[in-house]
Amino acid sequence: MKKNVMIVYAHPEPTSLTRQLVEVSVRTLQEQGHEVASSDLYGMNWKAVFDERDFPARANSDRLSFMAESGHAYSTGQQTADVTAEQQKLLAADAVILQFPLWWFSMPAILKGWVDRVFAYGLAYGYQDEGNRYRYGDGGLKGKRVMLSVTVGGPEIDYSPRGINGPLEQLLFPITHGTLFFSGMDVLPTHAVYGTGRITAASVDAAKEAWRSRLVRLFEEEPIPFRRQNEGDYPDRHILADHVAVGQTGLLAHIAQ
Amino acid sequence: MKKNVMIVYAHPEPTSLTRQLVEVSVRTLQEQGHEVASSDLYGMNWKAVFDERDFPARANSDRLSFMAESGHAYSTGQQTADVTAEQQKLLAADAVILQFPLWWFSMPAILKGWVDRVFAYGLAYGYQDEGNRYRYGDGGLKGKRVMLSVTVGGPEIDYSPRGINGPLEQLLFPITHGTLFFSGMDVLPTHAVYGTGRITAASVDAAKEAWRSRLVRLFEEEPIPFRRQNEGDYPDRHILADHVAVGQTGLLAHIAQ
Repeated sequence: MKKNVMIVYAHPEPTSLTRQLVEVSVRTLQEQGHEVASSDLYGMNWKAVFDERDFPARANSDRLSFMAESGHAYSTGQQTADVTAEQQKLLAADAVILQFPLWWFSMPAILKGWVDRVFAYGLAYGYQDEGNRYRYGDGGLKGKRVMLSVTVGGPEIDYSPRGINGPLEQLLFPITHGTLFFSGMDVLPTHAVYGTGRITAASVDAAKEAWRSRLVRLFEEEPIPFRRQNEGDYPDRHILADHVAVGQTGLLAHIAQ
Repeated sequence: MKKNVMIVYAHPEPTSLTRQLVEVSVRTLQEQGHEVASSDLYGMNWKAVFDERDFPARANSDRLSFMAESGHAYSTGQQTADVTAEQQKLLAADAVILQFPLWWFSMPAILKGWVDRVFAYGLAYGYQDEGNRYRYGDGGLKGKRVMLSVTVGGPEIDYSPRGINGPLEQLLFPITHGTLFFSGMDVLPTHAVYGTGRITAASVDAAKEAWRSRLVRLFEEEPIPFRRQNEGDYPDRHILADHVAVGQTGLLAHIAQ
């Protein structure tokens, strides 16, 4: 069945592995009959910095409160055209794929700036102007799937359970759980290609084939079982109930077994 | 004893809590006789996006490899002037303080872009062109202290051990451990002000006083006891030794008890 997929990517070099994997995404998804909308952040010269220029019609011209102005701009249809266009692509998408090189264990600044600016109050947080009533599984982006596709310079062993960097999925928790699941999306496990600093041509081919195999199951895979805020695990919307994840603390307590 | 302290901050609004805390930083440190160098990223109109313009003299004009070009530009003195100036401030500093609002559980894009561009190959990674020989406690920024000072919109309970967001220090691990300790710095525990979305004037005053009390001990506090790569805990530089953090996996295994 035909779906809409949005791809957001961040690498300016056409021959980069990131861009090669983006090409695999577009081709594979289109072969499956899906509609693909791409946001090439470098190519679009995306404005990364969230600032007063994002609010051409201010609610309060004396003092810049990002949350208040974001809510005002979103609810009154006075956002900048670039932000509105991205939100429309997001809202039209059944699935979103973010493709980027891991820089300092996170997203390149240009992609972080896409999140900062596009994930507005009223859409990705403060849904229906209800504060944190709708978050972690609920919110304006509910019902959409999302996956991170990252290229990682270092070797996989550094990201293994006792590897020196820490496990990749824990390093990405602020993005997968704190940003994407927070806004309501169903987050699939991250797809990583490791060791790209010294990758061979044969490994590039294998990486493309592995990504293709992952992609064809985009609408079948089980999401990461993050616990939803409003289904009983957090009775007060802040803290895990005593009978949930007994004895556990920290990031992993928020993933159901 | 007089020290050099660098403050890097990211908020454009002069009356914001972030900026008020920056003012406390400057005043408190100067009262103690320290030299303060500030980088006001919004005020400087800092270029957040790491791209080909960062490499005016390319090692390879056909294909943009960020690592290769970063190393080339750094080692041959051909970086852009803004990056060089920040590196000089960093190298002159005995301590660095990063002050920012927590946006989507991480840094605003403009600050991430400061890291992406300033933490060059040869300085913050690939020190002495030795790959990962010098990292996690070693490297070009060794001997410097660093602390994050963050303003957090949500309540502290959401960041408690079983709080729905996860503990703040684990969410910031990609920055504290993966970026700052990686580059050699001694990282102090993060200073957070929570609940800034609805903060009262009295709480602002209390927050300033608490920050002031923290700051006066900047050169006395114990850093987070992250395990150093080259002191025995990681015999192969990749994985924890069997006798270290027995039975532990994940982020916290990299902090000594």
